Parts: sequence; structure tokens; C-alpha cells
Amino acid sequence: MSRTLIEKLGEGLPSGAILTDPDITASYAHDMASFCAAGTPAVVALPRTVEQVQHVMRTATALRVPVVPQGARTGLSGAANAGDGCVVLSLTKMDRILEINPVDRIAVVEPGVVNATLSRAVAEHGLYYPPDPSSWETCTIGGNIGTASGGLCCVKYGVTAEYVLGLDVVLADGRLLTTGRRTAKGVAGYDLTRLFVGSEGSLGVVVKATLALKPEPRQQLVLAAEFASTAAACDAVCEIMRGGHVPSLLELMDRTTVRAVNELAHMGLPETTEALLLAAFDTPEPAADLAAVGALCEAAGATQVVPAEDAAESELLLQARRLSLTALEAVKGTTMIDDVCVNRSRLGEFIEGVARIAQDLGLSIGVVAHAGDGNTHPTVCFDAADEDEAKRARESFERIMALGLELGGTITGEHGVGLLKKDWLAKEAGPVSLELQQGIKAVFDPLGILNPGKVF
Amino acid sequence: MSRTLIEKLGEGLPSGAILTDPDITASYAHDMASFCAAGTPAVVALPRTVEQVQHVMRTATALRVPVVPQGARTGLSGAANAGDGCVVLSLTKMDRILEINPVDRIAVVEPGVVNATLSRAVAEHGLYYPPDPSSWETCTIGGNIGTASGGLCCVKYGVTAEYVLGLDVVLADGRLLTTGRRTAKGVAGYDLTRLFVGSEGSLGVVVKATLALKPEPRQQLVLAAEFASTAAACDAVCEIMRGGHVPSLLELMDRTTVRAVNELAHMGLPETTEALLLAAFDTPEPAADLAAVGALCEAAGATQVVPAEDAAESELLLQARRLSLTALEAVKGTTMIDDVCVNRSRLGEFIEGVARIAQDLGLSIGVVAHAGDGNTHPTVCFDAADEDEAKRARESFERIMALGLELGGTITGEHGVGLLKKDWLAKEAGPVSLELQQGIKAVFDPLGILNPGKVF
Repeated sequence: MSRTLIEKLGEGLPSGAILTDPDITASYAHDMASFCAAGTPAVVALPRTVEQVQHVMRTATALRVPVVPQGARTGLSGAANAGDGCVVLSLTKMDRILEINPVDRIAVVEPGVVNATLSRAVAEHGLYYPPDPSSWETCTIGGNIGTASGGLCCVKYGVTAEYVLGLDVVLADGRLLTTGRRTAKGVAGYDLTRLFVGSEGSLGVVVKATLALKPEPRQQLVLAAEFASTAAACDAVCEIMRGGHVPSLLELMDRTTVRAVNELAHMGLPETTEALLLAAFDTPEPAADLAAVGALCEAAGATQVVPAEDAAESELLLQARRLSLTALEAVKGTTMIDDVCVNRSRLGEFIEGVARIAQDLGLSIGVVAHAGDGNTHPTVCFDAADEDEAKRARESFERIMALGLELGGTITGEHGVGLLKKDWLAKEAGPVSLELQQGIKAVFDPLGILNPGKVF
Repeated sequence: MSRTLIEKLGEGLPSGAILTDPDITASYAHDMASFCAAGTPAVVALPRTVEQVQHVMRTATALRVPVVPQGARTGLSGAANAGDGCVVLSLTKMDRILEINPVDRIAVVEPGVVNATLSRAVAEHGLYYPPDPSSWETCTIGGNIGTASGGLCCVKYGVTAEYVLGLDVVLADGRLLTTGRRTAKGVAGYDLTRLFVGSEGSLGVVVKATLALKPEPRQQLVLAAEFASTAAACDAVCEIMRGGHVPSLLELMDRTTVRAVNELAHMGLPETTEALLLAAFDTPEPAADLAAVGALCEAAGATQVVPAEDAAESELLLQARRLSLTALEAVKGTTMIDDVCVNRSRLGEFIEGVARIAQDLGLSIGVVAHAGDGNTHPTVCFDAADEDEAKRARESFERIMALGLELGGTITGEHGVGLLKKDWLAKEAGPVSLELQQGIKAVFDPLGILNPGKVF
């Protein structure tokens, strides 16, 4: 079977585009999720053209072989993990920026373009592609579309879904579908474009995307505020948003995270801090906005408020946030990063609930949050070699999911479902929604060969 | 059949919620589209609760009777037109605002809430619901969702789709589906919410919507610029957008429209004007933005630039735009409003093409456009009693659609497909997309009873 598969793939792909060495293909088996099984791919295909992708899908359809579309494998839900005997379809070699248009404020790109590459290229035209997942230096636009990625700027600029205008997609049977538009507006027919965003490669393979761009914003100015309780910090978040402010970033780090950052980088953040809030504004008068938001923080009980006076100081204040995940990883060697989003009015309750779960299970769980969006990343620090601790880490995941739903939130704000959260998607969406989603899946992929076992 | 239908509906609806008098039901047969046939409904149902909507759909499923969901019938594509023997399901009595939350910046509403009612209610909390179709004083949120409505503010604030976070939907068989979320972010499963937006009642009946809100913007300041050619006005539009400006409104009126407005309201707009451009800014320093944009207009050849100095002057300048459609209607008694959206870089070509079509066919066609979005409303003025002119009006519609597609645009920027543009949707989307869309329709409505004959 595998022999036939590789021969048939070779009929439409150059030999360099087919990897079969098990040592190499094994390196394509996993994304960055914890607790997710991965199988052994039969082959990794690295097409460079739409026609080559179509050939892969036609071959897979003919042979009934599963295909796992893949970007940079920076995902955190196992959505890009290989299954046994599958074709890993890596889109990383289709990495051309085809167009940047400053009048129409669009970019047309292939799926393998790295987020940072696009961001820098459009900046040269005075333009801005906002979605900025933490992995932006390595993750691809195709992966961002598959996952419906978010990032730090979403609180002002929204998520990937809001920037995808149109797609070219190779379907399971190899046919080419064009969705959406390249105009600013358009409502012709069902919104297939948005259906693909976040579908984790289960409905088709994105081979081209038309993206909306914004004008490049001004340099943002950052304020840091320390709080003696997470409740007070979360109150400040609520008051900032109630006050009609539009920060370009509003991030929260809890005590565990602050201490981990101190440990790693000796930044000298006060060890008494229970929560550190970072707010940024890229408005015409950011200093005035920082002053207003600083006053709200003080009213909410901030013990210290530090507004940056320039870009360099702002960058320094953001350093702590940027180091958070690395710092938490250093605590015990392994982390399990979660992604619950609650309403910002419930953020305090959620973070306190996570602290209780950590205490109950004797775990260290740091919480970093895109606080302005209520999107939290409880990050469980554990020693993967310690079986008992790993088991408790897994247990904490379940409890954190349950807590998120209990508070009216969602199990995933920006990381997706993949393998990790399939059971929880069923709980969040309910049977009616699940039946319809599976019905849609069957319309696009009747043989079930596209990323089987993911999402649901 | 009709007797059984009405009896069965009566088992779950109060008598006042069922209208059968043909004189009354006939008034529910049409939306505001031209050239679209409408049948005679068997009955109009006016439910007030989700359970009553479920009862209507269960009854319709049991009896295999088509159901046409309806809002305020201000649509312009015939999507809400009745078919013979159908149940018109008017959601206008489900008109409660259930929640307005300034911290989470969301509103939860029933579908029959009028757009203006919601806009005013949220403004009392310092909040803003941007989508503002021209019919905003009468159209409903449910209708806006069904149509994926736009409006004048889209150039800065986007369209309805970007404000719908989650929905409760009664399915064709009466089951209740909940989609989406009430959190700022969320990517759990396929995006069914966006699938419903713009689906024109063909996939289910929206009975509740969770909407995202923005903080109320500052008062906008308006600039008017006159041009001696539409090409120059469109150049100005391109330069404004290339320059990184973010107007809260950027509208264009062509000569035919300007003259019609003069005729109606004696506003004294110069008859030599070939195009009038209106730009607005709700930024912290709108006067500075108007000055910059005014200079760009002059560089592009504006013959006169008039920046407003305050809100009252701004309102005066907008009057001409607000009167446009009424004024064009007055020209010949009947109008056919079109809705092609092209890239703003092709706007000049499109408007010139429409002028050629008007000349070829001996018609008067005024163009008003949400120029910043490239979304145009060529408005054909004709005498419906003049058979030959009506025929030429219909012919101009076909040519305008073809021109839009030829320039890489879409057949509908914000009005939808309905009955009017079914043939053109097939041309724009192509057979692969259409097959998939019909497959999705069959998943949600296997019996085909929801708004049959619309969209495709």
C-alpha cells in the first residue's frame, strides 16, 4: 500500500517533494500540544504548486489514504499530529507572497508564508496584518487560518477570521474551490470562507488566501500595574473596558508567572505582586490614555503603576510578558498550556478557580491572559518524568475545561480543538451542533480522509 | 391542506399570532426588491417565543409546508418574498433586548429588535452597534443577520458578520441549535454562526443573537469635495486609502444623483459637479484628518473642498447623501437599486462602465457608493408603466452585474442574493462552490422547506 502510495505521489510530485526516510518523517509527526498521541506517517509531501496539492489529494482519494495538512507545527491542540500511515501534507514550501496592495489594503499569499514574514513585508507598504500569535516568528498563515489564531493585539484588532476575505482550497477529491472575495465587502452566498477558518484542515487544504490589511498603527505606549490580588487586577480590566477605552494590548500575569519570570531573567519584579497588568495604547495621544487607565488601576487597588514614556521603556515592560511561557516551562521542564476564554466580567472568578484547582492537586499553574478578551492561558508546570504529577496535570486540564464552561466561557479562545479537546467540544457544542458539524464535514469530505479524528 | 395547517399552527400559537385574512397576509408577501415575483402566503405567523417558533417549524416539517422567515421586509433582493401556500414566519414580535453589558461589550437580543432601537439603547450605556443599513430606522437585527447587512460606517467598523458572536437558531425540524459564544474570542468547532449570517433564512430561524459592541465613537466631522469627473473623485478615494487614513464614512454621489437631490430638495449643489465625495472622521483630531484628506482631494483635482467645522455643519453635508435614494426615486417614480462591490482601485472603471451602460440603453442611472469599500449602488430610475423602459432597466441590471464580475468584484456587497441574483450567484461562485453550498443546505434543511427557491 505504502509503496503504491509513494509511487503514485511521485507521478505528480518531484522526488525532492516526497520524504520517506522514517527518521525524517517522524519529525513531522507532532505539533506542540501536550497529551496528544501521534502516529507514524507513511510519507511527507512538500508540494510547491496548487497542481501538486491537487495531485496529492487525488491520490489520497483514489487510495483512501488519510491526509494531515500541516503548517509549522506550532499548534497546541494536536490538530497537525500525524496518524499511522497518513500522508503529511506540509504546505511550508508554498511560501510566496503573491500581492500586497496598499490601495485595496489586501495581501494575497500562499499558505506557507510565515506570519512574521508577511507582517514585515506589509509594514514596508505602511500596512499591518494584525493577528499575532506568540509563535508568529515561525507559524504560517495557513496554520493560522486552520486554527483561527489569535494573539496579543486581538483586544483591539480582532482575530484571524476577521482578516480572511477569500480562499483557494483544494478539496478532498482534488477539485479546486474558490471562496469569498478580494473586495472589502461581499455577501454572495453562504460564507464558506469563514467555515474554513478554524476547521483545522478537516474540510480542505488552503492553497491561497486573500487577507485584509489595516494601516500600520502608531508605536504603542505601555503601562504596567501591580496588584496585591488577581481580583483587583481583574476589576481594573473590567473598569478599563467599561470606561470605553480601546487598548491595543491588555495582558495579565499572575503571581506564579511573575515569579517564574524573575527566576529566569532576574527582572526584579516585586515578589509580593499577585498580578501584573500590562496595558498598551497606539492612539494619537497614548500618554493621556495611559494616565486615564493608570487612574482606573489605582482606583481598583493597584499597588504600583508604571507608565512607559517611550518605545524603549514600553518594550522593557513587555519583556516580562514575552518571557512568560519560557519561564513557566523552566519551572518543571514541561508545560501544558490551556486556552479557556471567559467573559472579561468573569475573569477574576476564573483565575481564582484555577488557583483552587492548582492547590487541590498540588500543582504549579501559572496564568497568563489576554485579559482584555478574557482569553486565559492557564499553564500547568510539571515534570513529565513524574508519572503522578503528569497524571495530576492531566486531571487539572479536565477541571479547568469544566470551570470554563461553568462560567459561560469556551474551551478554546484561539488554540483550537484538534485532538486535545474533542470530548470537550462535544460538551460545549452539544449534540445538535455536533450533528450539523459532522454533516458539513461529510459534504466536504465524504470519504473522511482529511485529518480524520481531529475536531470531533 | 391550508385548513389543517392553520389548525395545527393554532395548537401552539395564540389566535392573535396567526393571520389568515388574505388582504392582510398579502401585505407580507413582498420585500422592497424590484423585479422579484412573490406568491400568496397561506398564513402569517407572528410568534413571541422560541417555543412558538419551534411549533411553527415542527408543524411545517410535519406537513411539508414551506416557511419564509421575515423581518421588516426592507430587503432589496426578494429574499423575504412569500411563495404560494407558504407560512410567512414574521419575527417582528420577538423584539426584546435581553441584555446590554458594558463590561463585556455585548448585547443579547431577539431577532425582531429594530436596528435603530438597539443602537439608541446601547448608546445610553456609552456603547455602539455599528452596522447601519439605510433602512436602520425600520429594519430588524434578525433581517440584518439574514442579509449580512452593511451600511455607511462599514469602511471603518465592518459589517454585520463581524458583530455576531453567537446565535440561537430554530432548525427546520424545530430543534434548537446554539452556535458561537458570548466571549470576545472563541474557536471551538466549525463557525456555524458565520454560516447563518447572510444565509437569508434558508438554514434556520434565528431567535436570539449575541452581538459585539464597540465603545461609542466621538462625533464625526464631515468634509465634502466636488470633482469635475468621477475618475478624479475615485482617484481621491484611492489616495485617501493609500495614505493610511481611516475615515468613518467615505461616500460618493455621481452627477445624476447630485442633480436629483437638487431637484428634490433645492440644496443648491453646483450643477457642474460630476461627483461629490463625502469623507468623515470620528478620530480625536478630526479637523486635522479633514485637512489632510482635503489636501489629497485637491491634489486629485477637486474643484471645491468644504470641511465642516462642527456637528451641525457635518449633518448638513450628509443631508445630500441621505436624500439620495428618495431623490432618485422621484426622478421617474421607480428605482432598481443595485449593489455591486469592486475593489476600490477599480471603482472609477466601474462607475464609468455604468455610465456607458446608461447611455447605451437610454436610461438614467444614478450611482451612490460606499466609496471607501468600493461598494456601489447603481440606481436605475425608470417608469414602471413604460414597458420598454422597464425592459431596458432589467437589461441594465444584467449588464451591471456582468461588469462587476468582469472587474473582479462581487454581485452583492451587502444586499444579498435572494431571488434577484440567483443566476448571478451561480456565475460568481461557480459549480464547485454551488454544489457545496447546496450540500450544506441539505444538511440543515433536508426537506427543503426553509425559504425554498432563495439563494440558489
